[in-house]
Formats: sequence, C-alpha cells, structure tokens
Amino acid sequence: MPDRLRRTSDLSWSEYRERAIDSVVLLPAGAHEQHGLHLPLDTDAFIAEALAARVAEAIDGLVLPCLAYGARSLARSGGGDGFPGTTNLDGGTLVALVRDVLREQYRHGVRRAVVLLGHGENDPFAIEGANLAAREVRDPAFRVLVIGWWHVVPDDMLASLFPEGFPGWDLEHAGRVETALMFALAPERVRRERIGSVDPVVAPAFTEVPARSGRVPSQGSLADPRGATADGGAQLVKAIVAGLVAAIEASFGPRGAARP
Amino acid sequence: MPDRLRRTSDLSWSEYRERAIDSVVLLPAGAHEQHGLHLPLDTDAFIAEALAARVAEAIDGLVLPCLAYGARSLARSGGGDGFPGTTNLDGGTLVALVRDVLREQYRHGVRRAVVLLGHGENDPFAIEGANLAAREVRDPAFRVLVIGWWHVVPDDMLASLFPEGFPGWDLEHAGRVETALMFALAPERVRRERIGSVDPVVAPAFTEVPARSGRVPSQGSLADPRGATADGGAQLVKAIVAGLVAAIEASFGPRGAARP
Amino acid sequence: MPDRLRRTSDLSWSEYRERAIDSVVLLPAGAHEQHGLHLPLDTDAFIAEALAARVAEAIDGLVLPCLAYGARSLARSGGGDGFPGTTNLDGGTLVALVRDVLREQYRHGVRRAVVLLGHGENDPFAIEGANLAAREVRDPAFRVLVIGWWHVVPDDMLASLFPEGFPGWDLEHAGRVETALMFALAPERVRRERIGSVDPVVAPAFTEVPARSGRVPSQGSLADPRGATADGGAQLVKAIVAGLVAAIEASFGPRGAARP
Amino acid sequence: MPDRLRRTSDLSWSEYRERAIDSVVLLPAGAHEQHGLHLPLDTDAFIAEALAARVAEAIDGLVLPCLAYGARSLARSGGGDGFPGTTNLDGGTLVALVRDVLREQYRHGVRRAVVLLGHGENDPFAIEGANLAAREVRDPAFRVLVIGWWHVVPDDMLASLFPEGFPGWDLEHAGRVETALMFALAPERVRRERIGSVDPVVAPAFTEVPARSGRVPSQGSLADPRGATADGGAQLVKAIVAGLVAAIEASFGPRGAARP
Amino acid sequence: MPDRLRRTSDLSWSEYRERAIDSVVLLPAGAHEQHGLHLPLDTDAFIAEALAARVAEAIDGLVLPCLAYGARSLARSGGGDGFPGTTNLDGGTLVALVRDVLREQYRHGVRRAVVLLGHGENDPFAIEGANLAAREVRDPAFRVLVIGWWHVVPDDMLASLFPEGFPGWDLEHAGRVETALMFALAPERVRRERIGSVDPVVAPAFTEVPARSGRVPSQGSLADPRGATADGGAQLVKAIVAGLVAAIEASFGPRGAARP
Amino acid sequence: MPDRLRRTSDLSWSEYRERAIDSVVLLPAGAHEQHGLHLPLDTDAFIAEALAARVAEAIDGLVLPCLAYGARSLARSGGGDGFPGTTNLDGGTLVALVRDVLREQYRHGVRRAVVLLGHGENDPFAIEGANLAAREVRDPAFRVLVIGWWHVVPDDMLASLFPEGFPGWDLEHAGRVETALMFALAPERVRRERIGSVDPVVAPAFTEVPARSGRVPSQGSLADPRGATADGGAQLVKAIVAGLVAAIEASFGPRGAARP
Repeated sequence: MPDRLRRTSDLSWSEYRERAIDSVVLLPAGAHEQHGLHLPLDTDAFIAEALAARVAEAIDGLVLPCLAYGARSLARSGGGDGFPGTTNLDGGTLVALVRDVLREQYRHGVRRAVVLLGHGENDPFAIEGANLAAREVRDPAFRVLVIGWWHVVPDDMLASLFPEGFPGWDLEHAGRVETALMFALAPERVRRERIGSVDPVVAPAFTEVPARSGRVPSQGSLADPRGATADGGAQLVKAIVAGLVAAIEASFGPRGAARP
Repeated sequence: MPDRLRRTSDLSWSEYRERAIDSVVLLPAGAHEQHGLHLPLDTDAFIAEALAARVAEAIDGLVLPCLAYGARSLARSGGGDGFPGTTNLDGGTLVALVRDVLREQYRHGVRRAVVLLGHGENDPFAIEGANLAAREVRDPAFRVLVIGWWHVVPDDMLASLFPEGFPGWDLEHAGRVETALMFALAPERVRRERIGSVDPVVAPAFTEVPARSGRVPSQGSLADPRGATADGGAQLVKAIVAGLVAAIEASFGPRGAARP
Repeated sequence: MPDRLRRTSDLSWSEYRERAIDSVVLLPAGAHEQHGLHLPLDTDAFIAEALAARVAEAIDGLVLPCLAYGARSLARSGGGDGFPGTTNLDGGTLVALVRDVLREQYRHGVRRAVVLLGHGENDPFAIEGANLAAREVRDPAFRVLVIGWWHVVPDDMLASLFPEGFPGWDLEHAGRVETALMFALAPERVRRERIGSVDPVVAPAFTEVPARSGRVPSQGSLADPRGATADGGAQLVKAIVAGLVAAIEASFGPRGAARP
Repeated sequence: MPDRLRRTSDLSWSEYRERAIDSVVLLPAGAHEQHGLHLPLDTDAFIAEALAARVAEAIDGLVLPCLAYGARSLARSGGGDGFPGTTNLDGGTLVALVRDVLREQYRHGVRRAVVLLGHGENDPFAIEGANLAAREVRDPAFRVLVIGWWHVVPDDMLASLFPEGFPGWDLEHAGRVETALMFALAPERVRRERIGSVDPVVAPAFTEVPARSGRVPSQGSLADPRGATADGGAQLVKAIVAGLVAAIEASFGPRGAARP
Repeated sequence: MPDRLRRTSDLSWSEYRERAIDSVVLLPAGAHEQHGLHLPLDTDAFIAEALAARVAEAIDGLVLPCLAYGARSLARSGGGDGFPGTTNLDGGTLVALVRDVLREQYRHGVRRAVVLLGHGENDPFAIEGANLAAREVRDPAFRVLVIGWWHVVPDDMLASLFPEGFPGWDLEHAGRVETALMFALAPERVRRERIGSVDPVVAPAFTEVPARSGRVPSQGSLADPRGATADGGAQLVKAIVAGLVAAIEASFGPRGAARP
Repeated sequence: MPDRLRRTSDLSWSEYRERAIDSVVLLPAGAHEQHGLHLPLDTDAFIAEALAARVAEAIDGLVLPCLAYGARSLARSGGGDGFPGTTNLDGGTLVALVRDVLREQYRHGVRRAVVLLGHGENDPFAIEGANLAAREVRDPAFRVLVIGWWHVVPDDMLASLFPEGFPGWDLEHAGRVETALMFALAPERVRRERIGSVDPVVAPAFTEVPARSGRVPSQGSLADPRGATADGGAQLVKAIVAGLVAAIEASFGPRGAARP
C-alpha cells in the first residue's frame, strides 16, 4: 500500500502551506467499477493512488485524495454499467469535481497539477474539468497535465508482456496488465483462485444504449488475466513511474526548477 | 485505522452482488479542510470513514468509498476558505456527487443508504443530493438517512467532556471532541506537540463574503483542543456508533428485517 | 407592516441611482413554508422583510424585494416537505437566485449587500450564492453579509423568554419566538385561537429521505408557541434590529463611512 | 393595493390544504426593472400581482407570492440592462424558479396553474419552466397556462386608447398603458410630475450585446406616457381581468367544473 | 441554394485565420420544426443560412455553420411541439450552444458577430447566450448583434404583400412570407400542390402546457400561404438583405472600418 | 455530395410522420475544427453526414441535420484548441444537444437512433447524452447506437492503406484516411496543392492544459496525408458503409424487422 508521507490528507494546513505551493500536486482519479471476478471494485483508484504516491516521491510532489468514483463505465473498456457495484458519475459531476479541486489548489498557490487517471473513461471529463478550471482562473501560469498511467507504458514492455500481440488498452480491463499491477502493488487484494479464462467475446468499440447482454465477457475482465505476474507488475510499476516522471518534467520542467 | 472488511471497494462485483442489495450501505462524506495545527486535512473524512466501518460491522452493512472533498468551509464551523489546503467543492458539485452515488446503488438494488457526514457543511448539500436521487428514482422504497456523527452524541457525555459547558457543535472544529476522536482512532496522526491554546476569538454565526481576517482563531481550531484524551475519544466512538446504529434501525428497521 | 420608504421596489431608476450605490442594500430571503396552524405560509418572508425595513431605516439603507420562496424545508427545522403549501426551491435554484440578484446590484455600483435570512434552511444556499457572485465579479471591494435574525438574538433575552431553557433555534419553528415576532409585527396575521400545545415529538437532527410520518408534531409547530406575547415580540424586534445593525457596522464600517 | 384574501402567503398550511388543491393557483411573475422616471421599479410585479388578485377573486382561485425579479430586460421592450436598478435574472435562474414553484404546487395536489406575466421578457423562460415542470411530473392532468395581461387587452380598447395608432406592446414599456394601470391600481405610486415627453428614439426590435447608448429614450419609458388616465386604467383593469378569466376558463373549464 | 464561398466550414484553418478576425462573422440559427404541409422541416435554418450567405457577400463577412435545431416551438408562432418532426432544444441547451460558438470566435480574434435568427423562438435564448458569452470574455470590444430577418422587413413591403392587413409575425409561420422566401430561394423545395387554405383557427398569444389540440390549424401553417410568389420572395430577399446590412453597419460601423 | 432524399430536413411534418417512426434515424455529429492546410473546417461534419446519407439509403433510414460543432479538440487527436477556426463546444453543451435531439425523436415515436460520429472527441459526450436521454424516457425499447465511422474500418484495409503500419486513429486526423475519404466524397473540397509532409512531431496521448506549442505538427495534420487517393477513399467509403450497416443491423435487427 502506498505510504502516506506524500499525501496532502496527512498534512496540517500549515504543513500544506509549506509544502504545496511550489510542488507539483497530483490528483489521482479512479473509479468504483467491476474489475472481473478477481480484482476489487476500487482497482482503478487503488492503482492511480499507488502510482501517484511513487511519482510524488520521485519528484518531491504531493498527492491529493483520490477521486474514488469515476465516469460512466463503457462496455468496450470497462464492461459497461450492468455489473453490480459499478458506480458511475454523470459526466457533468466528474467535470465539476475535477474543476473544483484544481481551482482550489490554484487558490492556495499551486501552479502545477497532474490529474493521474486510473480509469480510461475519466479522460475526456477530467480534461474538460481542467479546461474549465483554467478558463476560470485566467492565469496561463496555471498548468495541468491530464495523464493515464497507460499513456506511458513503453511499447517494448507491452511486446514482452504480450508475445501474442497487445490487444489494446480498451480491452486491458482487469486483464493481464491491471492484474500484474495489483500483484505488484497489493498481492493480498487479488483473488488468485478466481483468475481464469474469459468468454471469447470482444466488446465492440462502439456503444449501445442501453447495453446489450452478451457484449462483454460474463466474467467482467475484457481480456484474459492469466499470465500476469508480480514480477511483470513490478517492472510495469517501475516503467510507469519513470514515464510519468518524464512526462511531468517535460511539461513542467525538471524538479527544482523555478516555477514558471 | 478502520479495517477493510466491510468496504465495497474491497469487493469484486460478484461479492458486491451477494452482499450489497439487502444491506444498509453507508457513504461517508468528509472534507479536505484545515483542522488546526495538530490534525490532518482529512480529519473529517477519516472520522466519517472510521465510524462507518464500525457501524457497518455492527449492522452487517457495507461502506462505500468516502467522499474525500466536502462543501465550502464556513468561518463559523470550519474556519472558512482562507486556510491553505482547505479544498471546497461548489455546492452543486457535492449535490451531484451524492445524487449520483446514491442513484447508482439504487440501480444495483440497494434500498437503504446512509450518508454519514464527517463535515458539518456537507449536511444541506448531502440532503439535497439525496432528495434529487429520490426524486429521480421515483420509488418510495428507496430510503436514505443523512446523519452526522455529532447528531447522536449523548448530552450527558458532552456534559462530562465539557464541565465548563459545551460550546456547541459549530465551534467544535478541531476542538476537544474531534481531537479526542482522533486520539482514539489514529493517535499517530495527531501532532500532540502542536496542541495548545487558541486565540480567544469566537467566529460569528453569520457569514461574511469574502471572509474577513481576524474572525477565527489563527490556529484554525475554533475551540481549545486541550483536554482531549484517547479514553474520552474511545467513549465517544462507542457512544456514537451505538447512536448511529440506533438511528439506522429506527429509520430502516432492525437488521435482519425484511426489506420494506 | 413595514413602511415602503426604504424599498428599492418603490424607487424609480433615477431614485435608485441616487440612493443605492453608496448604501447598504438588504435582500430579505424568506420562504413559503408551513408555520403551524396559527401562522401564515409567508411567516419567514414577512419577518425578514419587516426586520430589513427597520434595519434599513436605522442605517439609511435600502431593501430589495424579498425572496418569497426558500430552500427545502427540513423536518428538524421546518417540518419538512410534507405539509401542504410548503414550496421548496431546489438548492441550485436558490443559489442562482441569490447570485443573480447580488451580481446585478454590483453591476449598478452597490458594494455592500446583506442577505437577511428569515428561513434557516436558506443559509447554506445563500452563502453559496454570495460566494458565486463574489467569484464572478472578481472585486474584493464587493462585500456580502449573510445573516439570519436569530444569529443576533441576545442570550439573556432567550433566557428570559425561555425560563425552562431555550430548546435551540432549529425547534423554534412556529414556536414562541416566531409567534412573538408576528404578534409584534402583524398581530392581525396570527390565528390566536389556533395557538395550542403541540405533540410532544422532537424531530431528530438528522434527515430522512423521504420523510417519515410521525417525526414532527402534527400541528407543524416544532415547539410550543404558547407564551408568545406582543411585548416579548417587540423586545425581540428591538434587540434583533440592534444586533443586525451592529453586525452590519462591524462588517462594513459605520454608516456614513466612505466606501471601502 | 390588492387585498390579501386570496393569497396563499396569508394561509396556514391547513387552510392551503382546504383551499388550494381544487383551485386554480396563479403565480404572478414580475420584474425589478426601470419603468421610466415616473413609475417604480416593481411596476411589472405590482401589476401582475394586483391583476392576479382580481382574477382569483373572480374564479375563486388563489395567488402565490409574486416572482419579484424577472428575465433580462431587453432594450426593445424594457430599456435594457443599463438603467440603474434593473435587476436581471439569468434565463436559467428564472426557468428553474418557475419549474420549482409549479412542481411544488403539483406535489401538494394542484392541477391547474397560471403563470401571470407582468414582464414581457419573462414569457419564454416561464414557458420553459412550465414545460420542465410538466416533463418532470409526467402527468398530463397537470396543466399550466402562461399568459401576459397584454395578451388579452381587446383591440377596440387599444384603438380607443391610441387614436393615433397603437405602437405595439414592446414599446408600451412605462408608456400609456402601464401608466394608466398604475393610475388605476395605485395612483399614489405614480410620480405625476415626472410624466413627460420622451426622446423620439425607437429602440430597434433586434438586440445588441452589449447595449449601445442612444438606443432607447433616456427617460426609460419607451413610449410617451402622457394621456394615461385613471379612468382609462380602470377600464383596462376590468377588460384584462375579464380576458384573463375567459382565457383561464377556456383552458381549464369553467369554475366549479370537476377537475379533469 | 446559397453558395459556399463565404462559409467558414469551407475554409481551412489558415484561411480562417486570414479571413475571420477582421470580419463580421454570422451565425445563422434555425430550427427543425414543422412548416405546414408544403415546406420542409429545415425551413427556418435554410432561410437563415441563405440570407446569411447573401449578407456576408455584401459586407465581406463570413458565415458559420447554421444551428440546425432551435428553441421549443410555441403554438402561437410555430404550431407547438405536437407536430411530428418538430425537434425542440431545451432553452438551456440553445443558450449554451450560442454562448460556446460565440466565445470560440472571440478566442480566435473575432470581435463582431451576428446571430441571424430564422426561428422566432430562438430570439430570447440567443440573446441570453450572447450575454453569457459577453460576460465571460469581459471585453466590451466584443460585440454581438442578435437579429431576426423579420426585424428588417419594411412596413411598406408588408402592406403590399398583405393588402388585407398584415397579421403579425407570430402568425407568419409557414404563411405567405416564408413561402415566398422559399419560392425565391429554393423553389424546388416547396410542395406547390400542398399549398392550400388553412383552418380558420388563430392560435392564442398565450401558451398552454401541455398544448391543447385544436389550438392551431391542423395543416401546421398558422396563416394562409396562398398568394406567395417567387417574385414577392425575391423582393423580400433583397429588402431583407439590405435591412440586415444596414443594421449591421449601424451596429458595427461600415465595412472596411477599423475594428473598434 | 450526399443526396437529400433521406434527410429529415427535407421532409414536411406529415412526411416525417409517415417515414420516421419505424425507421432507424441517424444523427451525424461532426465538428468545426482545423483539418490541416488542405481540408476544410467542416471535414468531420461533412464525412459524417455523407456516410449517414449512404447508410440511410442502405437501410431505408433517415438522416437528421448534422451537429456542426463538436467537443473540444484534443492535441492528440485533433490538434487542440489553438488552431484558428477550431470551435469547441463545452462538454456539457454537446451532452445536452445530443440528449435533446434524441429525446425529441423518441417523443415523436422513433425507437432506434444512431449517433454517427465524425469527430473522435464527440464519443464520450455523445454517449453521455444518449444515456441521459435514455434515463429520461425510461423506456428500454428506446435504443441508441453511438458509433464512429473509424470503428468499422476493416483491419485488412488499414493494412493495405498503411503498408508501413497504421499509426492509430488518434493520429489519423487530416491524415491519409480522412484525406482519402474527402477525395472520394468531395474532391473539389480538397486543396491538393497544400498536401505535403508534416512536421515529424507526434502529439502525446496525454493532455496538457493549456496546450503547449510544439506539441503537434504546425500544419495541423497529425499524420502525413500523402498517399491518399480517391480510389482508396472510395473503397473506404464502401467498407465503412457496409460496416455501419452491419453494426446497426446487429444492434437493432435487420431492416424490415418489426420494431422491438
């Protein structure tokens, strides 16, 4: 489990004052969404938060409390809204939530924020929230990076993890990559005995409203989670953290750099 | 720290299906708000979540992920928005968030939900969210209880904790009660050495926009936290959990009762 | 009934121009809500408007038209939404209404505004509206005071009105204080013959959605209105007006002071 | 001034219960808007409320508290937003206000409601609010009539009032008709000495944002108010009330008819 | 059919950059609404777009893509929402759409925009959208003209077209004027054989929600379209284009003038 | 250019009544967004509309007017908001627009609708709008398919078009595929002479707010448009139409089937 040393939630207001203003502040944005039979409903939130803690350690940044609920799950990338427990926010709710949290950090002096996504469906709404916050504060010095951890997984690592060919990120829902990450980050949270094959159903890229039954594997995983290992997960974590740090430094300048 | 056994976030979707529908589901609603020099920014969220876990244990219920951000802090009850780190949601954002999370539980079959408040300012907006969810689902069998832990603290316990007279819940922000609760729930999270007297300033009950300086104690605690003890906190926790259980059973019927 | 001399509604635009810009402008915010068997549905609006007129007289201010509809009535402080006639605004509607009216006064040059609440449930939404107006105008010189008349009733007066102990403002709905105020302000509007005891039911501080029957006295008054007198009401009016004037002057500086 | 006997604001909740459900309930919708040099800012609200009281008397109906603030004033029909005191609601705010008030009457059993407009600019937004309320309640038995008093002024009366030709309702802002109505309804509220000619400027039917100076008469009246008389006003009131009653009965059936 | 030379939709981004910033940019705002038995559902959009193209030609301006859907059709001016195909936007949707499109043109440097209405019901919502855009950009140099083509039809032309007296613009829905315009602009789109008399029903100026049957002619035309000719239409087009150009030049200064 | 025979905009209301209710109705959803130096700003709208017309022909369906403005352009898939002419709708605006148009078709009897996307960024917001419409109408017989034309391009066709390897749909903005489609659909709208190489810049998959310069090729095309041919485009059109027809029939059943 991520340590708490870099969490704003652990700071008092005076500690936040000392630490936050010149730091990069990370907002993990997860979901409460089915993740197959073997992973918990908070998988996206948990991974985002764990990675954010590691990134914060690397860049001397801070982590805000994770958004525990995310955007509507889609059949193609999350199985859709039919699985029990999947708790969708309306798009407008998530937009407002991201906007408000970012705007408030700006109000306290923060100028560099990262929304670290653990749930693919959050991406457009988090970007919208960041844009609304930016429009409202009217200060180009305020900069936000909206990034999913999957955006920085190196191609060669995918090639090695998927010798049969990488099926694409949409299908990697509760599949080999997320399972490997959970093995690395919190092995006790994975129900090993429930890892198994999944129905040979490939959810279409388009979306039907209401969802039609039979469009996603009945297990909830969109791809076969077998083959995930803690070792593979540890390599992924390492590569992702490095990739996120590189993206952040490319966007905001190297740590220690004066604020823009 | 609360155990994770009752958390929906720990369940897979099939476990949620088995467990949630006939259960009372609790949604803790906290804040990311200054709590004096000695308590962390997530105090309201942490207390709400910890109490929810204990209540869930007592009534065989479940706990949803806590809302980590809350309604605008008021000078009179939270010190207002000036302290660094205090991260206010707009009222409409919180309303939408509560509405969405409740509506989704209903969609999956839940009929009895509790919004357990750890932050006083959340109360009206959580009630609004619950009303909007109820209006939308149009099913009187769906019932929501919106309750703050302070609503059930027995008067005699307050009399004993405050022999000089209880100053009222608004002022009990980062004061003796919250500090005692944190001593009982997570003593390692209290900065003991920073507990001290607070400026003899009493925030007015009315609200000035923008906030005026000098209206709240500069420490952030609205009342003196001294005198808080782990023992007092443990008694409070016990009494609050009992009070919450009683309120829930009064609203929804005793555990084990058939759903309405 | 309050005289009309201080009402913006009585002014022509050229008179408003002369009078308003350097004045404190008061916006009474009432409700259309049950007030027991003996008081009219507009009690909160009527009291807020009457007090605003007296305050305006004292500080050479102006009174805007009262908001005649207010926030959702809660069981604990207004009996809830079940009583016929109670006309709740959604929270977002009241927020927008307060925001718009304040923003427009600012647009015409007003820099000091008071939202004078006659209905407890309006408080958080009026504060939200004032904050949104302030955020929009982006001018710290624009200052708003959101205040309920009950915020300034002196403790010793309560002690004298309630020798048996003051039950708290939430329960003082259509009880002794509001009834006394109506006796003083508009005795002809009180149905004397319908003043009587109320069911010995104490609404809980928490909120159930939907409301459960039997949670509030069937009469609608949350506390016994007997014992209210016109004399007591007159003293209350005097003390409240003085208290409001003091709060306004503390916030905005004494009348006649140059604008900030 | 309209009598209070038909006002819901004067009723207790039990009186509302007896009276409202089978009645036609009228919601006057006014404005706080410049009305030339001789009429007060609440002219639209005052006329709507006064006419509603007379209509309610005629049909044994009830009058809700008037909406005191209205939609954005347009140059062509209200002089626009530049005149001091003109207090515009955003369109969305007025829509929500009308929707909420109507929905709440429905909730209490009312099935026939009239939004009686005193301000032309309210029309589209009141219609929108009525549509949203109807969509929400999903009951075709709930019927709303949105009507302006000018919709029922007989042509022959206009011909007689304007022997030189009626300039159209848009220009009749603080002109001969409204002035005559105020002479009839509240002569003491008309500044007789300030009635005079107006600049020979005719506001265009289209709208410029921001408003351009010189587009409306500097007095604020869009047409010459001279020639208005109390007698003419009394005839107008009589004809309008008769016209409104006829429209209401045409829409809802004659008074005394069983509810649909 | 209007030529495409002046359409922003035909430009590449670099051509827009060269052409738009110093130009007047026109946004036609139509509807998808019944227009009797003889005209197509896009009549309002088609006319607005065709006139905008001609105006753009005259003033060296540009035309944005037409808003193809418009505000809720009213019985009095469009037949109401009962006719199949009539596709109403909620008021708030249209407001947001106009606001966004205008705000984006401003962002790219445009300072003079015209919303050219083809649908009467759009007027208040387009004005609202223009006001919200103006409030947001906070730059008085940004100016918007909201104008319907009917605002500039000369009285003498109406007198000539309607020797029996002009029935007013509300009733001119799919009547003689719109039919003549379509004859002139796109004769092949008029079903000549379906032009005929209409029921002698005059929709009232007020609005009933839900709409009552029998309130508008069953054909959908609110006035008799017979008598429309291509010649009359051509004269109307010419006069309207001249009127629009005059209004635009009056608002923004003559073409070629330096930007304000 | 697509023929108009299948467009609802070309129908009168009585024709819509006959044709629409049992038909599949297609709503093309485009954008007004830069498409490199050689394609017009309406490329996404134009392609969506042209394909919708062909699909409608194949399934005996109807095409609604295209949404001419789309969701915020992202750097990674559209170049972002910096290119002149790119006209972004706020997410909430597009959601409301799609919701309203779909809800209105349902109101008139339509039960099978397709939102045919021409702009990748529309996808999540169109899905949101479809979900809100479905939630509102509360009728599971109402079914919506949200689909982008790129969702059905066969892999082998991509392999043949991109012998060097397909770079992914995000980068195919104003690249070889869109250019080929425009060559096939409207060759006269392609500026052949401006087709050339693009800067060797690959926009990152994550999003920076505000956009940083240098992140996308300065031409606006995200991938090299060279190699696009009319023949290739014609094959793409044929394959896409077939793919869309197959997806629609898979979702709604074959044409001619009874409505569900």
